[in-house]
Amino acid sequence: MNTKVEIICVGNELLIGKTLNTNAHWLAKQATTLGASVNRITVIGDEVKEIAHVLRESLRRKSRFIITTGGLGPTFDDKTLEGIAKGLNRKVGVNDKAFRMVKEKYETLLKEGRIGKIDMTPSRVKMATFPAKTKPLDNPVGTAPGMLAEVGPTSVIALPGVPPEMEAIFNGSVARMLKNEAGKSAFHEASIYVLDIMESSLAPLIDATMHDNPSVYIKSHVYVKSRIQVEGKKSHIELHLSTMSENSGIARKCLDKAVTELSSLVTKNGGKVIPAEAG
Amino acid sequence: MNTKVEIICVGNELLIGKTLNTNAHWLAKQATTLGASVNRITVIGDEVKEIAHVLRESLRRKSRFIITTGGLGPTFDDKTLEGIAKGLNRKVGVNDKAFRMVKEKYETLLKEGRIGKIDMTPSRVKMATFPAKTKPLDNPVGTAPGMLAEVGPTSVIALPGVPPEMEAIFNGSVARMLKNEAGKSAFHEASIYVLDIMESSLAPLIDATMHDNPSVYIKSHVYVKSRIQVEGKKSHIELHLSTMSENSGIARKCLDKAVTELSSLVTKNGGKVIPAEAG
Repeated sequence: MNTKVEIICVGNELLIGKTLNTNAHWLAKQATTLGASVNRITVIGDEVKEIAHVLRESLRRKSRFIITTGGLGPTFDDKTLEGIAKGLNRKVGVNDKAFRMVKEKYETLLKEGRIGKIDMTPSRVKMATFPAKTKPLDNPVGTAPGMLAEVGPTSVIALPGVPPEMEAIFNGSVARMLKNEAGKSAFHEASIYVLDIMESSLAPLIDATMHDNPSVYIKSHVYVKSRIQVEGKKSHIELHLSTMSENSGIARKCLDKAVTELSSLVTKNGGKVIPAEAG
Repeated sequence: MNTKVEIICVGNELLIGKTLNTNAHWLAKQATTLGASVNRITVIGDEVKEIAHVLRESLRRKSRFIITTGGLGPTFDDKTLEGIAKGLNRKVGVNDKAFRMVKEKYETLLKEGRIGKIDMTPSRVKMATFPAKTKPLDNPVGTAPGMLAEVGPTSVIALPGVPPEMEAIFNGSVARMLKNEAGKSAFHEASIYVLDIMESSLAPLIDATMHDNPSVYIKSHVYVKSRIQVEGKKSHIELHLSTMSENSGIARKCLDKAVTELSSLVTKNGGKVIPAEAG
């Protein structure tokens, strides 16, 4: 029932600290919400060999899905499809369906009067140059299509790096693939926000609560500069409880029981529980 | 001259899309600014085996530095030091210096009247339980010390996940290690913001400019929702130029030359260059 997902983000801008990797965050949240489990996120630069190498490493771990972001555009540094082809030992060539998708984008621009003529330059054909035996995924908001390759037990999905394009292809084509695999499995979570107690004092309370509630995973997060300002306190700790279940009623009950037990332990040990609304 | 760095971020919260990985972004920017090159960022969950496995994979690539974030605290899910020990085939045990560091934090809390007595509970001793033959790194703003392990050509550095603690240990102990290795090498960059030209039309202009300026790397970034609002335009493209050099004068000259050439090509091809101040 565990639908495993890996995310591979391609882009020098992520390795030089220019761009914050909001794509990985967004994808991880979507996949988790759909009931899948992200096991690893790997960020690498714009290099064909590196993309091929990381893809091969990832395929060996036999996740159900590998989702890449970035490197699908028209410029020289967009190397993801070439890297995937190399990783899969497949040739690259113009994908007819992808070519039509790209050409249609320019036909629309021509109709709108934004370009004078359609010129399928090498840079534009590049966006339709796919590894053999793969399928394009419609990009409703940009030019470069996404790509789907079935490789043994794994679906390899390549999405663009521009966030709205990545999100649109995911929502339009990828979300339902994940949901189909994950079935009824869903992620459920709750949080308790506490003050006046140290994380080291919470540790045994978390252990005790998890012992009594084996389906619930509890993790503490220290916020030194608090987003919640209560009684002039500058920091707080969030206790995050989560469970993956096919039955949301049971999941909520399990979480509620653990929240009640842990809150009570925190209070008994001198801590203060802040109402959830404050979070 | 290329000081290679890998970053390994440990934390389920990153894989479920709960927490945006600002730590990797901050570290990548610091390392790049100090003249080092980040080659890979890997995000994994709170599992000893997985941490050990990823560390071993990373060590095989023989970077000069491997920096981990997360998993140094007092709770059960803080497993990074145990994972590193397993990855290095080293035993874990209480590190005397780390124990003194942790105890001193509680002595300070006692002096400040924030705790009634010092009780070195198992959860607190855990923060001083290190792999053999490693050194603690002072944490000026939190309790859990960082860790330094020398492994062949690689310095493995473990930092906490709480951002202000991670940053404080990096600034206090790690930055100078990276700078010592990188020497005079430094990262230089410039950006041009353009409108009214498609990325596919920019592609050959970037190729031509890079051909004439081989030391400069140019990458285009499409912003569909612009942070810069000019003449009601909703999107723009940033052309980011960068170079690594030991001589900042030469680097600036190279960048200036490439900026001038590329800006001129953009304008000649119907694009509009927005003044840099707008960025």
